[in-house]
Order: sequence, then C-alpha cells, then structure tokens
Amino acid sequence: MASERQTSEERARERLIDLAAEFYDQFDAGEIPYMTLPTRTKSNIEYDEDANVWVYGDRTSKRSANSVRGARKLLKAAYTIEFLARQLDEDRSSTLRELYYISESWDNEEAHFSDQDESNKLIEDLEIVSEVKREDFHMRPEESGAKLMGPLKIREQTNRGDREIHCQLDVGQGGYQIPNNPDTIEFLEHDIDFVMCVETGGMRDRLVENGFDDDYNALVVHLGGQPARATRRITKRLHDELDLPVVVFTDGDPWSYRIFGSVAYGSIKSAHLSEYLATPEAKFVGIQPQDIVDYDLPTDPLADSDINALQSELEDPRFMGDYWTEQIELQLDIGKKAEQQALASRGLDFVTDEYLPTRLDEMGII
Amino acid sequence: MASERQTSEERARERLIDLAAEFYDQFDAGEIPYMTLPTRTKSNIEYDEDANVWVYGDRTSKRSANSVRGARKLLKAAYTIEFLARQLDEDRSSTLRELYYISESWDNEEAHFSDQDESNKLIEDLEIVSEVKREDFHMRPEESGAKLMGPLKIREQTNRGDREIHCQLDVGQGGYQIPNNPDTIEFLEHDIDFVMCVETGGMRDRLVENGFDDDYNALVVHLGGQPARATRRITKRLHDELDLPVVVFTDGDPWSYRIFGSVAYGSIKSAHLSEYLATPEAKFVGIQPQDIVDYDLPTDPLADSDINALQSELEDPRFMGDYWTEQIELQLDIGKKAEQQALASRGLDFVTDEYLPTRLDEMGII
Repeated sequence: MASERQTSEERARERLIDLAAEFYDQFDAGEIPYMTLPTRTKSNIEYDEDANVWVYGDRTSKRSANSVRGARKLLKAAYTIEFLARQLDEDRSSTLRELYYISESWDNEEAHFSDQDESNKLIEDLEIVSEVKREDFHMRPEESGAKLMGPLKIREQTNRGDREIHCQLDVGQGGYQIPNNPDTIEFLEHDIDFVMCVETGGMRDRLVENGFDDDYNALVVHLGGQPARATRRITKRLHDELDLPVVVFTDGDPWSYRIFGSVAYGSIKSAHLSEYLATPEAKFVGIQPQDIVDYDLPTDPLADSDINALQSELEDPRFMGDYWTEQIELQLDIGKKAEQQALASRGLDFVTDEYLPTRLDEMGII
Repeated sequence: MASERQTSEERARERLIDLAAEFYDQFDAGEIPYMTLPTRTKSNIEYDEDANVWVYGDRTSKRSANSVRGARKLLKAAYTIEFLARQLDEDRSSTLRELYYISESWDNEEAHFSDQDESNKLIEDLEIVSEVKREDFHMRPEESGAKLMGPLKIREQTNRGDREIHCQLDVGQGGYQIPNNPDTIEFLEHDIDFVMCVETGGMRDRLVENGFDDDYNALVVHLGGQPARATRRITKRLHDELDLPVVVFTDGDPWSYRIFGSVAYGSIKSAHLSEYLATPEAKFVGIQPQDIVDYDLPTDPLADSDINALQSELEDPRFMGDYWTEQIELQLDIGKKAEQQALASRGLDFVTDEYLPTRLDEMGII
C-alpha cells in the first residue's frame, strides 16, 4: 500500500507537470495556449445505463488565452499547478479553503482567486483534465468522513507513522474516525459479512448499543446526512476490494432516497468521480414507504417540497424500475414520511430484532 | 471511576423514583398532585457575576393537575419516569428522538407526546427538578461530540468492555472520537500543557498536520461549529480535573464569539447545566478584530446580521469588560470579518510558527 500510494502521488505530480508542459509546448510552437475540458453543463452529463453512474458526454470546450478572461484562468491554473506540485514534493496537504487564501500570497495579483467558488472549480477542472483525484493532489476536504464500527482491522498511514486499529476492539463507543483521505487506509483482516451505511447518528448509536455489528458481522458506517467524499470512497473500496455487499439504511423521505442515490450512483456535480466514489451495487434497505403502511409507523405529512422532490425522483434515471416507481407512488398516495428512529415506537430492539433481519433476509443479504 | 459511575446512575434512579413518590404522597394526602419548577422565561435567567455563568433566578412556577392540560403533563412525566427508571435498570440508553417515538407505544394515549419539542422540554424539566443531568438518565444526544488529538491516555467504559486509548499513538489522523457521554471516560495519563478548542475542521486538520499538538503539548479539541454538549463537558472536565488552561480558537466574527461564549459561560437555553458544561476560565485566542488589522488578513465585509449580532454582544454580560468592548467596536469600525483559515494567506505554517505562539505567549499560556 505504501508503495501504491507513492505511485499515485508520483503520478499526480507527473500529470500536473504534463499539464504545465503542454502550455509550454503551445507557446513554443507559436500557438495561443489552451486547455480542453468536457463541457460541464447538465446537457452534457449522461446516465450511463451499463455502469449505472453519471458520466460526462462527448462535448468538450476549449479554454484559450485568446481573451483576457481566458488568459487569466490559465494563469491561475499555472500558479495552482505550481503550488500543488510543491505541496506534493514537500509531502504537505491543504484544504480547498486554504488554497483560496494562499492565492493571496502569490506575487501576480491577476492570479489571485476572486472567491472560493473559483478555486474549487479550478481544482475540479484539474481533476478532470489530469484524471487524478484531488486527494492525490493532497487537497483535503473540510468535511469529516464517517465513523466505522465493525469487525475490521485496518492500517492507516498517518503523518506520524502507521497505525493499526481494529474497528471494534481498539476504539471507543464512538468508533473509528476515518481520515479525510481514506486511501491512506489498508484493509488488513476482517470478518465482515456486509456493510451497513446508516443515515442518522441516533440510529448508528442504536445499532452499536444493540451489538448489531457483532451479532451480524456488519460494518456500520455512519453517513451523517449527505455523505462526505471520504465516506463514499471508503464504502466503494470496501465493496470492490473486499467483495462485500453494501446496504443503505435511511429515513423514509425523498431527501433520504437522494442520500442512497449519491452512495450508489453518484451525483451530477461529481460526475467525473463516479468511478471513484459510486457503488452501483449498493442496495436500499429502508425505510420504505411500504414499511410505513406495514408497521403503522409514526409519520409526518409530506410537505409541498417533499411532493416535488418525489415527483422529480420519478423522472430521475437513478430511480427507474418497478421497485422505486411503486414505492414513490405509494408514498405520494399515502402522503406521509417516516424517520428511521420511528421504529422505536415498537420498542428499542425492534430495529435489530425484527426490522433489519426481516429486510436483509428478503434481500438475500443474510 | 466505574464505581463513581455506578453511583451517579443509582442516584439518577433514586431521584426519579423520588419524584414519582412525591406524586404518590400528594395523592395520599388528598392533595392535587403538582411539581415545582424554576420559571424558565428569559426574565428569570440571570448572569451570575461571581461564577461567570447563566443561572436561574428565584422565581418558580407550579405545574398542577388541577387542569386537563396540567394533568396531562404530569401523566407524561410519570410515564417518562417509568421508562427512564426501567432503562437504567436494564443498563440501556436511548436518544431524545427515540423517547418521543417510544411514547407512541404507551398504553395510555393521553401520555403520547404531540411533538419532539414537548418530550425534549420534559427531559429538561426532569433534569432541573431532579438535579440529575440527562446523560445520567442514559439519554444520548443525537449530535456527535468532538474529536481529540494530543498527549492524553484515557480509559473509556463502553458497552463491550473498557478500552484504553492514547489520543496520539492509538488513533488515526482523524483523532479520538469522544462518546456521547464523556463521563464514561477516565483520564489515565497525560503530558498536556493546555487545551486548544478549534472551531473549524480545516484548522483542526492544519494543527494536526503541522504537529502543533506534539510541539506544544496541546490537546486539540475540534468544536465543529457550535459545540455539542459532549464537547463542552469534556472540555470542562479537562480543565477541572487536570487543572489545564483552556483556549478557544475560532473565526473572527460575532457567531464565533458566541461559540467561545458557549464554551466559557454556557447559554441561556442550558442555564441549568452551566455548572456541568461551562468553563468560565476559558480564554479566547482569536481571530481578534485587531489581528485583521495587524496581519492585514483577507476579509469579508460585515453583513447587516453580523452588525446586529455584534451590537447585541456589546450588551451581553458575557462580553463585558474592556477587551471585548474594544475588539467589537474595532470590528464595527473596520466593517470586516475574517476566517481562521485566512491565516493561510501568509503561508500554511504561519498559524503554528507565528500566530499561535505569539498569542499564547502574550496570554501567558506558553
């Protein structure tokens, strides 16, 4: 792993230098320098029916220095490439926000970013053009990743040496806090039968208190609402490298279905990262609208915004197929939504003694 | 510690039973049952100038069963007390949200909570009347506590046995995730000179990457915006039990000063918990408005809501004294605010090589 990581950093550095070298060659050949990018409008983002993820279409646009605006963008790209290459050289890292502030220290004022949107977008552009993800440029996200709890032993490469941690035996009740770049983690040993991603902290704590991870050899991953990149990345790696089924357990409302969708199929915003972040084989375990009916769960009425979101999900390629159509139409029909913690209305153990075992059995996971 | 915890749970159970016994005695004496509570309106919450925290004043109100509304409230209290006592018996725990849903399973429909506000408020009432904090009823918050990184070895009592964890050597880059109830933690050994609470994840990661905790024997506590109860509680315990100075490092804007205020002096909402959660000796390390001027930091203009918040802080007893008056007036004068990560405009190491050492030296911490 150490050597693999070395390689991905070296590759990142090389790709960055290649980009700068292209500008140089263009100058050298008497051309006006430019950069070619896939067009990043919604109309050029397609749902790949085979791979089940969002990808860019074929259209590209050219960013050329033939206008002041274009020239300034390439100047900023050049400064940013220099900063990133040095950062990799020195084995440092920084956040997107720090990059924005750092540009203030650059000698050429034209190269300063005018706001953080601009620097964020440039990093996305560089990810796309170089085909290197920003973690390999050592750009850390601000948002923290998930907590893990379950029968998994990992080795994490930290900047103060390697750490070997068992995600049940060596951690407190809060679990193992995954680092911002989960590619520093190596999976050493495990006894996991499936990965269970959980939306809310309250439900995550319930599963841990009830010993669900232990009883079912489950790795419990806390999503904490819309999951961070680090969380989606480690989920994908667990699936791909350890060949584990992944299930997603959320509230029963349209926003939670989107959380499932972003774990499974990625999002339009990060279409260039689908291959790296999305787990199309992930399955939705609930709360399903059918459960609201079957278990007579305490509910809230659907708000107008909920109804609109459900209707747009009926059109969303990620929610095509009989299962989602039926469930969403049922939910529009009953006009209700329920939280995962609503299962507590049947007792604190209902979720681990009844609900999840029944659902997971139906789905063929256990 | 194990025996201490036992005691606090037994005490919690006893106090709950006492409350129920009072109702019984009142019935027995032919009285209409009632409960006496401090009046929880703003006018009955005072700033205690000596203790430097918010406390309740002397006014009380009586909650009596002489109306349907009052009787229903006492009924809900009785059911909740029964649930909590059983929970303590069985060494289980639950979240506030679960309690709300659990009430749906109670046989008397009049006892069901109509919304979560009502059940949250009842738990606060029970905390006040019983003088037991809700963690000792085994009510877990939904929100996760802080992450710690620094030279501290702890023992945590988890529901699957004790865990001994060193908060530098036994954790990954993400640090030690404190549990929802930090009173399950015992401090074993430490080499900490001071506790540094940090507002943003980006700055927390910067300090850890730069090895600030190692170089200065600092325990870095991530606040993550407005800090959770667990975070404030562990900060207070570190101060009181290990006799450590506490500093708070935030953005330079009125909302961040409130974050400092809630660590140091508590909040109106949790006035009954000041003694348990507030650390009045905590000091503010920055970003100060003076730093914006001295270091010529990148800024954003103050919005109208910022200006209003600053003006109300000038009236807030927690921000009395020359220091805050000067700083807030300066900020209103320059009309600017700055984030802590804006220090990166002077390089990624400026915060750990220059800014913090200078400030901490001035404050007599190092």
